Amino acid sequence: MSLSMYGASVPVLRQGLQNLQTILTKAVEFADNKKVASDVMAASRLAIDMVPLSRQVQIACDTAKGCGARLAGVENPSVADEEKTLQELQHRVEKTLGFLSQLSPEQFVGSEDKAIQLNFPGITLNFKGQDYLQQFVLPNFYFHISTAYGILRHIGVDIGKKDYLGAIGGV
Amino acid sequence: MSLSMYGASVPVLRQGLQNLQTILTKAVEFADNKKVASDVMAASRLAIDMVPLSRQVQIACDTAKGCGARLAGVENPSVADEEKTLQELQHRVEKTLGFLSQLSPEQFVGSEDKAIQLNFPGITLNFKGQDYLQQFVLPNFYFHISTAYGILRHIGVDIGKKDYLGAIGGV
Repeated sequence: MSLSMYGASVPVLRQGLQNLQTILTKAVEFADNKKVASDVMAASRLAIDMVPLSRQVQIACDTAKGCGARLAGVENPSVADEEKTLQELQHRVEKTLGFLSQLSPEQFVGSEDKAIQLNFPGITLNFKGQDYLQQFVLPNFYFHISTAYGILRHIGVDIGKKDYLGAIGGV
Repeated sequence: MSLSMYGASVPVLRQGLQNLQTILTKAVEFADNKKVASDVMAASRLAIDMVPLSRQVQIACDTAKGCGARLAGVENPSVADEEKTLQELQHRVEKTLGFLSQLSPEQFVGSEDKAIQLNFPGITLNFKGQDYLQQFVLPNFYFHISTAYGILRHIGVDIGKKDYLGAIGGV
């Protein structure tokens, strides 16, 4: 086995998104039990000037989708950020998992040296593929999933590190 | 350039720890300005049943140190978890950076297939080196740094995504 850009991205992102689904499922159960509206949950924040749970999930999904598309060299499908409920967020995660599952290892060959440019309002970032994955994608991806987790823990949802990490290490 | 276990771990962990230092430095400034005791900051939590800022930093450091030691095949030095202030936590991060800087790429050759066993109370995890890095180390490392960030944002410390990501993409 040797390291590959595909192996360091797609399976890793898919596992993170599957764990996010687990966490969102427990959030749905919590909302049902507490009779809290799903959109109130999705609008929750850790700080008044941080984006809410819904946006944390959207950005995690977009980070994963953009990584797959840019490294594989396929079109990055635009997705509207319209989710207002936990169930809609789960659907967004599911769609992202579906997109990633269509990508093949062959499409990623050589992508470690590929020039990747990201344009944000007022700032342009330039990476080689490997740096894009390691310095931008993975830190951001885990940031938004961890923050989604933190928002739900702060609310009182019964989730733990095992939900965040998923089934690993043979257990 | 091709992917390597060293390149996918040590520089990535070092960058995350350097960004954590930036965040802790802003936390120190905040505490000074607000006349808040440093140990009160370090004891802050996102939820009553989550570990405090001090422990988030300790675990991030231990995750990075353990990764470096296990993949390089050197002794994993034991460090007591005694930090009570932000300044002591900064020192812990600095020590961890120093440990990682002593490791060389040659020590990591072949570590993607190396058997890694982690023993926790009541649970044993078994990985190949690459899975250990991708499924355990990086998700945990970013989780604890993101949670440290979330705790400080929740308190009101003036930090942003740029502090978390550091200098990347040529800017």
